[in-house]
Amino acid sequence: RMPGVSRSRGRRVARVILCVAVVLSWWTPARSAVMSPLMAGLLRRVRTCGDGLELEKKALPMLVPGIGELGRVLPRAASQLSRFPDVFSVGPRSVEIIAGATVSERSEAVGGVLNQLRGEGCVPMLQGWRNELWPVKASFDGPVELVIERAAGPLLGVRGFGCHVNGVVEGKPEKLWVGRRAATKPTYPRKLDHVVAGGLAHGEKARENVIKECAEEASIPRELAVLARSAGLVSYTQMDESEWGLKRDLLFCYDLQLPPNFVPTASDGEVESFCLWTVPEVLDSLAADNDDWKPNVALVIIDLLVRRGYLEPDDRGYVELVQSLRQ
Amino acid sequence: RMPGVSRSRGRRVARVILCVAVVLSWWTPARSAVMSPLMAGLLRRVRTCGDGLELEKKALPMLVPGIGELGRVLPRAASQLSRFPDVFSVGPRSVEIIAGATVSERSEAVGGVLNQLRGEGCVPMLQGWRNELWPVKASFDGPVELVIERAAGPLLGVRGFGCHVNGVVEGKPEKLWVGRRAATKPTYPRKLDHVVAGGLAHGEKARENVIKECAEEASIPRELAVLARSAGLVSYTQMDESEWGLKRDLLFCYDLQLPPNFVPTASDGEVESFCLWTVPEVLDSLAADNDDWKPNVALVIIDLLVRRGYLEPDDRGYVELVQSLRQ
Repeated sequence: RMPGVSRSRGRRVARVILCVAVVLSWWTPARSAVMSPLMAGLLRRVRTCGDGLELEKKALPMLVPGIGELGRVLPRAASQLSRFPDVFSVGPRSVEIIAGATVSERSEAVGGVLNQLRGEGCVPMLQGWRNELWPVKASFDGPVELVIERAAGPLLGVRGFGCHVNGVVEGKPEKLWVGRRAATKPTYPRKLDHVVAGGLAHGEKARENVIKECAEEASIPRELAVLARSAGLVSYTQMDESEWGLKRDLLFCYDLQLPPNFVPTASDGEVESFCLWTVPEVLDSLAADNDDWKPNVALVIIDLLVRRGYLEPDDRGYVELVQSLRQ
Repeated sequence: RMPGVSRSRGRRVARVILCVAVVLSWWTPARSAVMSPLMAGLLRRVRTCGDGLELEKKALPMLVPGIGELGRVLPRAASQLSRFPDVFSVGPRSVEIIAGATVSERSEAVGGVLNQLRGEGCVPMLQGWRNELWPVKASFDGPVELVIERAAGPLLGVRGFGCHVNGVVEGKPEKLWVGRRAATKPTYPRKLDHVVAGGLAHGEKARENVIKECAEEASIPRELAVLARSAGLVSYTQMDESEWGLKRDLLFCYDLQLPPNFVPTASDGEVESFCLWTVPEVLDSLAADNDDWKPNVALVIIDLLVRRGYLEPDDRGYVELVQSLRQ
């Protein structure tokens, strides 16, 4: 089948490949073979924020027939929902919301179930009931398909959307405003946070949310806030603390260059204080094995550090780190 | 089971949810319901570059036992490889390279098969044999596990790595240097390209590659080239033109701010000419339904536009666009 001349060429090529392969396999790789403590620390931050990713594989998609997937439900949550067969059809591969032909009927039916579970007290996260309604969509651009109490978001594993603002002060070194959350916050009290961050309510434009939160959380005037520049997004799946659900969030990242003489001040009691950190200080703290940072804040800051060239492809772990920013 | 007081509270909550849901479902969404021609055009670019993503699902993982996945092989390619059972064990779920206990032995065995297929002429892409060896790794930071002829990369669906440099000139409007590939290039002749871009050879650091390619492709002196700032990565799976394989590439993105008085010049015959475009001109051309751009160049430029705030979360399609940059 193979002519002789080709076979002899084949042998020559094979011999060349052999030689090169031997040389290559002996060659010390150019990238450092050991990961730096900085990269190891940053990867730890990203993994902490994405600690629900493995669990998500065991979760059942929550579907509305004809509409698509609205969430991901863990087995123990699915087992509770299966007690309400008029509302949820729980099978081995999915949880279907079968009640209601309209958004309002569906929301009423699901709300009734959530309220009963809350009354029974078996699902810890429902004790954090906020009386705050949350729109659920199959995609960010899609219409609202379901409205639920915000505290039940992780139980049904619905996507949450928010905006985080990096408050940057140019210079050498570049600096970043860092907030400390108030001790009275129900989630992550006293953890380090962005200068401004907020969840997106239904119908709210991301840019309007940024301007509103700039005023409310850090007294940043509108004429400064409008300069915030969108810079991409991060996404992650975090395990709910009670292990009953998944926080599946997508955060829009903004950079806001603040003048050196501007000092943000807490105005709504959500933040205890603001401090101006140099980027090397931020890097050191993120790389350290501390529990100082709200996990998703670390993710957005790492995205900033990647975009601004503080980390390099030649740093071992870079590809995994960057890919983990959008899970 | 549910106490009366809780049931009445349940009804009240359900009624509130019902009302809000009705209002929400009537509310016009804040984001524009129709996608802009710009976003539609950019999404088309990203999809063109990622046109192998669906096909990839049908591809078989190419494994080395004990080492892991090194590539993805399409069914028609797997069928050819199955003719060499001493080298490839082709099953319904994977293609295993079983020949060779070392990198060099494995590379020799695989090289022999590729060379025979080339001689038979049945696989078109092997007619583009370059006599250029390509390192294959299970991950970017991992050791070389296999060395193959570069032209066979898509046939085995191995990952390729490269660096692309956005040549940016600050100002209002911001500008971008755009190259036109030489008519003599074997791939994408006369298409629009980055000022500098290159594939990463084994053992080559990304930063060294950027500096070398800056000199070779655009006569950018070292003192300028070292200012290139890493800014992240894009990845995609593109169908090989012959439909025999997949180009699964990961590109490191760099931004290089060039002085207004600097003009890049082609030095190695790979580029026909360089032109300075304003960002609005680039946006218009990318959004248009033309075939002017090398597909992966469009991807890296869209990443730049996202990072620099030319696109906004409130633009319909933004989430899909940004998520598609790393596939």
